[in-house]
Order: sequence, then C-alpha cells, then structure tokens
Amino acid sequence: MSFATSTVLRPEPFVPVSVPVDDRVHAERGEFAAVLSMRHAGPCPVRLRYEWVGPVNAPVVVLAGGISAHRHVASNAQFTEKGWAEGLVGSGRALDPQQLRVLAFDFIGADGALDVPIDTADQADALALLLDHLGIRTLKAFVGYSYGALVGQQFAIRHRARVRQLVLVSGAHRPHPYAAAWRALQRRAVALGQLQCGEDHGLALARQFAMLSYRTPEEFGERFDAAPEVVNGRVRVAAEDYLDAAGAQYVARTPVNAYLRLSESIDLHRVDPSAILPPTVVVAVEGDRLVPLADLVGLVEGLGPRGSLRVLRSPYGHDAFLKETDRIDAILATAFRTSGESA
Amino acid sequence: MSFATSTVLRPEPFVPVSVPVDDRVHAERGEFAAVLSMRHAGPCPVRLRYEWVGPVNAPVVVLAGGISAHRHVASNAQFTEKGWAEGLVGSGRALDPQQLRVLAFDFIGADGALDVPIDTADQADALALLLDHLGIRTLKAFVGYSYGALVGQQFAIRHRARVRQLVLVSGAHRPHPYAAAWRALQRRAVALGQLQCGEDHGLALARQFAMLSYRTPEEFGERFDAAPEVVNGRVRVAAEDYLDAAGAQYVARTPVNAYLRLSESIDLHRVDPSAILPPTVVVAVEGDRLVPLADLVGLVEGLGPRGSLRVLRSPYGHDAFLKETDRIDAILATAFRTSGESA
Repeated sequence: MSFATSTVLRPEPFVPVSVPVDDRVHAERGEFAAVLSMRHAGPCPVRLRYEWVGPVNAPVVVLAGGISAHRHVASNAQFTEKGWAEGLVGSGRALDPQQLRVLAFDFIGADGALDVPIDTADQADALALLLDHLGIRTLKAFVGYSYGALVGQQFAIRHRARVRQLVLVSGAHRPHPYAAAWRALQRRAVALGQLQCGEDHGLALARQFAMLSYRTPEEFGERFDAAPEVVNGRVRVAAEDYLDAAGAQYVARTPVNAYLRLSESIDLHRVDPSAILPPTVVVAVEGDRLVPLADLVGLVEGLGPRGSLRVLRSPYGHDAFLKETDRIDAILATAFRTSGESA
Repeated sequence: MSFATSTVLRPEPFVPVSVPVDDRVHAERGEFAAVLSMRHAGPCPVRLRYEWVGPVNAPVVVLAGGISAHRHVASNAQFTEKGWAEGLVGSGRALDPQQLRVLAFDFIGADGALDVPIDTADQADALALLLDHLGIRTLKAFVGYSYGALVGQQFAIRHRARVRQLVLVSGAHRPHPYAAAWRALQRRAVALGQLQCGEDHGLALARQFAMLSYRTPEEFGERFDAAPEVVNGRVRVAAEDYLDAAGAQYVARTPVNAYLRLSESIDLHRVDPSAILPPTVVVAVEGDRLVPLADLVGLVEGLGPRGSLRVLRSPYGHDAFLKETDRIDAILATAFRTSGESA
C-alpha cells in the first residue's frame, strides 16, 4: 500500500467554488422502471433516475455521494439548480464534462417508495441495470463518497468487469460499531416522532444528531462559542439556530422512509476488501467521527497492492468531501492520471 | 503549571474493585429544608440531602460526581446498597473513611422538584448551606468529577475560605460548544417524547445518546463488533441491547425534570479560572468526547501556579473516573499528599 498525506490545516469560511457552466456541454436526465432482485426483500419494482453531463461517447465516470445525495451533482446548462457537490464537476476540473461523461443516479429507496431493508449490493445491481439501459459497458472510474463509497465497493465486487478504477472517500468496508450505534439512535428518534404523528419532528432531530457526526468539535468550537441564553425558562445553546435550520432543510426534501432505509443500509454493509479487484484510491479524513482513519487503513491493507491511501486533515470531518472541493479535485486528478487508463 | 501523564493503555474488562466495608466506620444520612437564593430563579425552597462516612472529627472531603450521581458514593456498614463510585472510598484508599470524613450530597434539582434553570453557582451555595447545617467550617478537599468538577469550581470561587484543595476530573471552566450541542439535542429528544406522551421513551433515548458521549469508539469497537440483524424487517445493530438496558435503567431512577435541569446546568456553566484560588489538580482523560483535553489545558493555564494537570488515557472516555478507580485513587493519594495540608 502506498501512503500520501494531504493536509488542510485551517478551517476557512466555506466559499462555494465557482466553476464555469459551459453551454456547449450536454446534460441529460431520465428515469425508467425496473424490477430489482433485492438481497433481503426479493424482487421489487423500482424506478431508476439518472443524470449525466458530458459528451455521449466520452469515458464514463460515476459519482455517488452520501445518503442525501442524488443524481444532480452540480448545476449545468440544462439543469441550473444547485447540486450536492457544486465545484467538483466543471471545465478544468478532474471531472471535466468536456472530457468525461459524468453520471450520477438517485439511490433506490431515496424516493421513499421502498419500505424494505436495502443493501448496498442492491444499489450496485441497480447501477448495473442503469448502465445496461444507457448502453454503457464499462466505467472509467467509480468515485464514491460516504454511502457512495460502499456502493462502489459492491459494484466492483459484483460487476467486476464493468469498472476500471475506484476512488472511495470516507467509506470503509464495514461500518464502525460506534457509528452504527449513533445511526441506530437516530432511527429511534424518527420512531419516537412516528409514535404520534410527529414524523417531521423526529426526522429533524435525527438529522440534527447526524450533523454532529458529520462535523467536528473543532468547527463547533470556532462557530458556536457564544454563551447560552435562557429563553422562556429554558437554556438554549449557541448551535441550536444552526441545528434548527439543518433539521428543517432536511425534512423539507427527505421522505422518512428514504432516511430510515438508507441509514439502515449503511449498517448492513460488510464486504471483503480482497474481493475488490480494480486499482483503488482510498481517501480518509483525519478527525472523521463516523469513519475512523484506522478503518480505512484496514480497507487499504485488505486491498493489498491494488490499494493506496490519501489522508486529508479537515475541520469538516465526514463532510470534508463536500467542503474541501479543491483538495478532492486534486486527489481525483492524480488518481485519474496514475490509473494507467487513458481518458 | 506542572504536567504529569498517567496512562492506561488497554481496555480491560470492568471488575468492580472490592474494598472492605469496615463495620467500625460510622456513616450517616440526613436531609433538611432550606430556601436557596438561585441565580436565575430567585429564592426557591429546596431539600438538601447528604450522606457522610468516617469519623465525625476527621478532616472533611466532599466528593461530587456527574449529574446522575448522588449522596451515596459507596456501600458502607450502615447503607449497604451499591453507590455511584464503588471502589474509591474504603480502607487503604486515598478516601479512607477511617482517616477522613467523606461527604456527598444530592444535587439540588436531582429530585425533580425544581423546574427552573439551575446554575452550578446554586449547587455551590447549597453545599455551603449544608456545611453550615453540619457545622463544618472548611473542607480539606473538594473532589469533583464531571458536573461535580464544575460545582467545585464555583464553590472555590464563591466560598473561598471553605476549601483548601480541589481535585477536578473531566470538567472544564466552560462547556465545549460541541458537547453543549449534543446535550441540547438530548433535551430535544425528551421534549419530543413529552409531545407524544412518551416521556420515558424520550428520556431513554436522551440517555442512550448521552452514553455515546460518555464512552469511546474504541470501547464500542471491541464490544459491539457483531454483524447487524434484520428483525421484523428492521435493521438492529449490535450495540442496541446495551443501549436499551442503559436507557431503561436510567429512566427507572431519574425524574425527567432532574435530567433536563441538570443537563442545562452544565451548559450554563462559565467561570474565570483565575478566580479559583486553592491548589487545584485537574485530571483530563485523553479521548473524552465531551471534555476535550485542550479545554482542561486551558483551565490549568488559567489557574497559573496553583494548577497542575494529570492526563489519563482510557478507553472509557468521559466515564473513566467511574471505571479506572485504581488510577483515580492513585491520583487522589498524590494530590492529598502533596497539597501541603495535613490530613
């Protein structure tokens, strides 16, 4: 295993990277119905939704994010709304839609219509169906972050001829038991809300607890240092406005079942790293409270000579992929350059 | 500031320390009513409950623990049930009830009867009333752990003539904003339960989230490594049995108001370390997810020449005081020996 360290020492205020939207770049969205043979639930009807940007004949890179991510990675000429990873896809970036066809998809279950246990293997099989549908035989690379990294592992194991390289950010071959416990309690918050018609309230609370796992004490220490207030006889601490906003924003766009089933899906994930055959760059974030560095070292060790590790230090913890876009872009550029595959 | 490190490298299975109960040692319990002038709520009727063990004329050490602690520190000849810190008080220990009179008390609010904001200053003033009631002029030492450490700081500031030495374990001069956010969300879990007429359910969930903050990923990694199960169509992770038990046990003994008001009280705490005048040993646990080492270094720096720091490494994180009783006992023995005060 090779080892490289990239370090971002200072928490800088988040400034979205401005990447030019090129009018000549084609983007397309679509969806179709399929029946998926699911690991725990058997055959289930699903709808597969995707978006891609770039030349139709260019090498294809799939980009898959966390359980809240979706098919719209970044704004483009056709679909101008903000995506979940603005700044990573654009002219001059490693994910350059003039050179590559960047494909993303909605995870199955994300629409809330699938109320059964969902496995990361099911997501990988859904992606294979999607590639068949689009006539794509092989991916140049699968770039997966968080939940997307787990799906990438399964895709490489179950459809090994269809992907030449993996980049896996902040996602190990199995969940850490502490992180699993944290998620299980979040699901209990949702269940408590559901007891008597407070479903949104429970989902907001679950998301707020999740935010603590995505971020770091360092960031909270810098942002929320103000003294608490006593409001209507109750103590209110400095971070609560932020947490209120995070909860409300999440509830507005997330079906409860989608949250529950995708959260569970992370905890069901267990794969054998030695079964992952493509060259794989594993990116770890020091201080990630959900996916400890040690677990990603374990993944790289299991990959043997096919694996290499990059370590980022970031005050954003598990969310670093979404915040440190320049660093991630640099890692992707290096990975694509050294993969031995031509673009 | 002086600096010493004590290290416990391996998480060993918890074996309660067996300390002989000496029949000749006298213990006594009592309670009385008082009116306390509270910082946020003005004058309030309170009941003060205490227990002490040891010779009535021996030097007095107060021992105060976390928000779940109470007046019964350890089993003794008169009160044989288990206490909250078994193994710390006993013959041959630093807290030897043949040499010292060890006093502990129920925090105000712990009975659930006080539904107003409670400040750590109020706890300190309640202790002063208790010492008056018992005819105790000055403490040889105040040993405070977690919330008890905050109360000890306030006691030293507000009643400076009444304590000669402080030992403060896992409690800083102000809460860390990340820990405050974590507690605020726990209080929201209780509020969600109250909305749904599921008060116990909410309190159990709050406690379960708190357990994650008290312990460490290292411990969870060792104890709860088993694969998840799918039970009735829902994913259940390995730590859930443990968390169920922790929640149920807590709910059975804790009034909801006690939990809410004492949790808030931690977040209200802010003192100036330079106002703490007695010699003070600060004990930090590396890996404590609630009280970071850096915050305790800040406390010791503020204490100047009066402060010294001991650092424990323990897989039990914030709970180390309750688990590493041999190490804590050794620290107390050194602190008492070097304080320049005769026993």
